[in-house]
Amino acid sequence: MLFDQITIVGVGLIGGSVGLAAKVRGVARRIVGVGREPRSLARAVELGAIHSGTCDLVEGVRHAGLIVVCTPVDQIAEIIVQAAQNCLRGVIFTDGGSTKGSIVARVAGNLPEGIEFVPAHPLAGSEKSGPENAQSELFVKRTTVVTPIPTNSPAAIERVVQFWQALGSTVLMMSPDDHDRALAATSHLPHALAAALAGMTPIDLLSLTAGGFRDVTRIAAGDPRMWVPIFQANRESVLTALAAFTDRISDFRRMLEAGDGAGLVRWLTEAKQVRDALGS
Amino acid sequence: MLFDQITIVGVGLIGGSVGLAAKVRGVARRIVGVGREPRSLARAVELGAIHSGTCDLVEGVRHAGLIVVCTPVDQIAEIIVQAAQNCLRGVIFTDGGSTKGSIVARVAGNLPEGIEFVPAHPLAGSEKSGPENAQSELFVKRTTVVTPIPTNSPAAIERVVQFWQALGSTVLMMSPDDHDRALAATSHLPHALAAALAGMTPIDLLSLTAGGFRDVTRIAAGDPRMWVPIFQANRESVLTALAAFTDRISDFRRMLEAGDGAGLVRWLTEAKQVRDALGS
Repeated sequence: MLFDQITIVGVGLIGGSVGLAAKVRGVARRIVGVGREPRSLARAVELGAIHSGTCDLVEGVRHAGLIVVCTPVDQIAEIIVQAAQNCLRGVIFTDGGSTKGSIVARVAGNLPEGIEFVPAHPLAGSEKSGPENAQSELFVKRTTVVTPIPTNSPAAIERVVQFWQALGSTVLMMSPDDHDRALAATSHLPHALAAALAGMTPIDLLSLTAGGFRDVTRIAAGDPRMWVPIFQANRESVLTALAAFTDRISDFRRMLEAGDGAGLVRWLTEAKQVRDALGS
Repeated sequence: MLFDQITIVGVGLIGGSVGLAAKVRGVARRIVGVGREPRSLARAVELGAIHSGTCDLVEGVRHAGLIVVCTPVDQIAEIIVQAAQNCLRGVIFTDGGSTKGSIVARVAGNLPEGIEFVPAHPLAGSEKSGPENAQSELFVKRTTVVTPIPTNSPAAIERVVQFWQALGSTVLMMSPDDHDRALAATSHLPHALAAALAGMTPIDLLSLTAGGFRDVTRIAAGDPRMWVPIFQANRESVLTALAAFTDRISDFRRMLEAGDGAGLVRWLTEAKQVRDALGS
């Protein structure tokens, strides 16, 4: 039992899975959910993701030892700053946001003495959303990136690392900026590419798609209200990654125009080597 | 029993699956494989995909009622023209090639009287290759596009449609050119995008990928020697599809640069609508 009470703000796919995993693995005695829609909280209680839910942030965080903020990224910093005025001294915040730099910047200097925020990003999720898609095993064999900030105490970092490990994930530590640059390339750019491909495809061509199109575009079914804030929070790195992609696909175009078969084989082989290294 | 003997030229993932499906479903009494590597043919016999194999095309096709050519697309036309000199009068050719126009053009006018080629493309397959990945159910609930040519007799078209249906697939008919334009957008472009993304990703970032990257790049593990001929055979349509993609991703870039959140939500929502229409 790492915590007596944890409070999860935003009980959707990630927040709901944090609740289920924490319950199943005995991470906390009591799990409270905070959300905007009473119906969604009631559903999360039914599904066993939280013990109780409230729409009142102040009430929900009051007795928590750990507060996990799993809302869209543009709301995380404000929630932490606001909740921090109303919770136990010694409480620790962590989050599940897909970007880190802008959240860290907005929280910096705005926490009362003795309250810490140790940012995190579990590399898990799917194109689905909502607590009904939450899974207690979502974090198992997945990486959670923890991005400590200069003011974090070693003790708080350790507690947060233990928490994400207790949910089943492997923790990797890096700076918020390194995280954002890397994830722009490995997650945010892929999402934009999948959405561009899906968005340009006429519905009447869908009968002529097979597994490849299905795989490439799967994440385009993700919730736009979750993804737009991610792109905006990580704008510079996403634009940099997109420029690198544009260069790479331009090489393909030029070789195809020139009939450079050997060049195309090399280009595809480089891609295959990377993908093979990832495994199925 | 639709045929006494069918011969499959190129017993890899698709050819092997044709063999397994034809056997399991009683489509032919005898299934012969033609390939370049005796070891690979022996493996296909072991796996039950063919009854016997030979590296001699002339010998392999001599007694066939249907010849299914499942080699890389740049070899299909030559194999058909060459085999047609050495087979039964009344034999029908079909194929599994991912492009149709250039094959049809190269075969046209080069078949002896009474021998027909009814082109086809089963929309099935995966990033894997080789007969060891063949599956008897590969074509079930999948579409096979049949692209008849002006010289085809209704009887030959019907036999080929029945054949692909007997393997479990649903047949859709269209012209070779319509097929190539559509597949450039639904299959060939997605492959290039997946390969561009995988190819630009440093191996040391792979530990920071999750399901999204995995899905988007999966087909980049496909065999370059199979894919380069597809891109080259369908060059104009692939370049057209790539130009449309470039326009679409440029809209994303401009809106992100301009901080146009509402525009990005619309852009992602259009993509989500298409992907949701496809189903999981």
